[in-house]
Amino acid sequence: MPYNHHDKIRAIEWSDAGLNLLDQRLLPNVTQWVLLKDALGVAQAIRDMVVRGAPAIGVTAAYGMVLAARDRYACSPGEWKSAIAEDIQTLADSRPTAVNLFWALERMRQFMEGLSGDPVPAMLAEARRIHEEDIASNRQMGELGAALIDGPCAVLTHCNTGSLATGGFGTALGVIRAAYGAGRINSVFADETRPWLQGARLTAWELVEDNIPVTLITEGAAATLMKQGKVKWVIVGSDRIAANGDVANKIGTYSLAVTARYHGVKFMVVAPTSTVDMNIACGDDIPIEERAESEVLTLAGQRIAPESARAWNPSFDVTPAELVDAIVTEKGVVERPSLEKMVAMMRS
Amino acid sequence: MPYNHHDKIRAIEWSDAGLNLLDQRLLPNVTQWVLLKDALGVAQAIRDMVVRGAPAIGVTAAYGMVLAARDRYACSPGEWKSAIAEDIQTLADSRPTAVNLFWALERMRQFMEGLSGDPVPAMLAEARRIHEEDIASNRQMGELGAALIDGPCAVLTHCNTGSLATGGFGTALGVIRAAYGAGRINSVFADETRPWLQGARLTAWELVEDNIPVTLITEGAAATLMKQGKVKWVIVGSDRIAANGDVANKIGTYSLAVTARYHGVKFMVVAPTSTVDMNIACGDDIPIEERAESEVLTLAGQRIAPESARAWNPSFDVTPAELVDAIVTEKGVVERPSLEKMVAMMRS
Repeated sequence: MPYNHHDKIRAIEWSDAGLNLLDQRLLPNVTQWVLLKDALGVAQAIRDMVVRGAPAIGVTAAYGMVLAARDRYACSPGEWKSAIAEDIQTLADSRPTAVNLFWALERMRQFMEGLSGDPVPAMLAEARRIHEEDIASNRQMGELGAALIDGPCAVLTHCNTGSLATGGFGTALGVIRAAYGAGRINSVFADETRPWLQGARLTAWELVEDNIPVTLITEGAAATLMKQGKVKWVIVGSDRIAANGDVANKIGTYSLAVTARYHGVKFMVVAPTSTVDMNIACGDDIPIEERAESEVLTLAGQRIAPESARAWNPSFDVTPAELVDAIVTEKGVVERPSLEKMVAMMRS
Repeated sequence: MPYNHHDKIRAIEWSDAGLNLLDQRLLPNVTQWVLLKDALGVAQAIRDMVVRGAPAIGVTAAYGMVLAARDRYACSPGEWKSAIAEDIQTLADSRPTAVNLFWALERMRQFMEGLSGDPVPAMLAEARRIHEEDIASNRQMGELGAALIDGPCAVLTHCNTGSLATGGFGTALGVIRAAYGAGRINSVFADETRPWLQGARLTAWELVEDNIPVTLITEGAAATLMKQGKVKWVIVGSDRIAANGDVANKIGTYSLAVTARYHGVKFMVVAPTSTVDMNIACGDDIPIEERAESEVLTLAGQRIAPESARAWNPSFDVTPAELVDAIVTEKGVVERPSLEKMVAMMRS
């Protein structure tokens, strides 16, 4: 079947009633939207993973600021700029690792400072700009990343980095889409990504929708896939990139980076500059969220471990820059990343 | 709580009515036994993973031979030795990777050659010897393996290698039990082991029953666990060890071996000599079972991937000898295995 990226998958939609989020916990079996009318609801939706993916969290938070401004301005037109600080904090507290969240909140905060009168139309326009710029960045990264792939070949990806995880199109999955369209990738292996199964539920679904051949594997099978020479690249997104090029991403990424290097498989990280945190020197300083043990101890609502077993559930890990062959942002490609190269890219 | 290996977990029990297998697909939520009355039923139970774990499959097949002999002798007392060949083939065809299956069938076949009259009492006694020898081997390996661990420390294990996977006590889990009793291990991390979740369902259950502290992780978290220095050893079992020391084991093992070496974490393989196949030169020649895609595409009976997604589901992988620090059998410890050392150990 011919490649057809219909570009219709959207997980974040503004309406006059409020912010609509496609509930990503229920996909692919159930398509259900959640309507959020205030900042508290948006924060809760981010925490509970109705929406996930670093860029999508950023876009969502920006719209959350619009809802906050609407409520605060209606309540007290003269004091809303100080009153909204509480909402910003609530949104910022929703998840700790993805820096796009704080980036979007800060951009919206700075933007609102200059406003007078009803802030909602202008803030909504700014949130929409953040959303559209994210999609444009993804398209740009798609082209830049695809050009690195000397195919046609198969690649492995982790978690979900597609339209669902971003404003649209995707980061790592955007590169995969662009490279598939350009004939540089001919097939995709997606690992299922425990415990939330974003690979199985979301990435496989997006690729099937695009008619891109996708084969699901358990994470335990990834090293054997590499040993058998079945993939040339591992392509992943990121939740925060430190100034030296260390990369925080979904738990399991680091294992793929170590095994990729061992097998001579190349490792690409795709993320917009809103994911780069130049205030963090290296990966050791990136806050790593640990989520509830129940996410590992139960599955589909059923207990899979004995009652008194414990679990350790870090949501992210850090891949050191030395294991990364290329970081792709909308501003360009950083090969074998270092502080110097990251500074140059961010200034370009 | 003090250590108390009650040694009461048994998954394989002979009775006059036939062979009773604890259905390991339902643990830990449901404890249900399956009664098998003929060799065909035993073969089906092995294929469907009512019983799993290389040594346990061997013990089960030995009892399956008793059932086959009972039926064949009753049907044709003069011809049963030729008629049973079909049952041996049926049992041998049940699963391809674990060599203990073929080892047990061959031992029972050779044993039966010398029999006259009703073969059942003698064959049952031989099957019981195989069963008891397996437990004794595990106890011996427990001591040998525990002595290698310079603790107290935490270790990581994969899949299930305990009483459920063997005649009793366990291979890798036997070492963990012995080392915990000796104060050399103070805590165990178990990875969940997708797609069958043997780590979550079976290993965590066995360790909880023994009051050994166990923490469950996803396989994606193993490399970070190592990076943080939380474990000193990875300890696993095996389904077949080649003459050069290459090790076939549950999918995901190889990834742990690569990441363990990268982090300076030691890697121990624990298996009785019935798992060693000196007729196989190296791991490339070990047949690797690929199981149904549905094991990856569904979970707890529910589809987790879109309808047209495919999956690749190899059940085992091969860890090259160069990544193995020690192979522990009941005959001794082979450090940094090679063909020469394996030959010497097998002859000892």
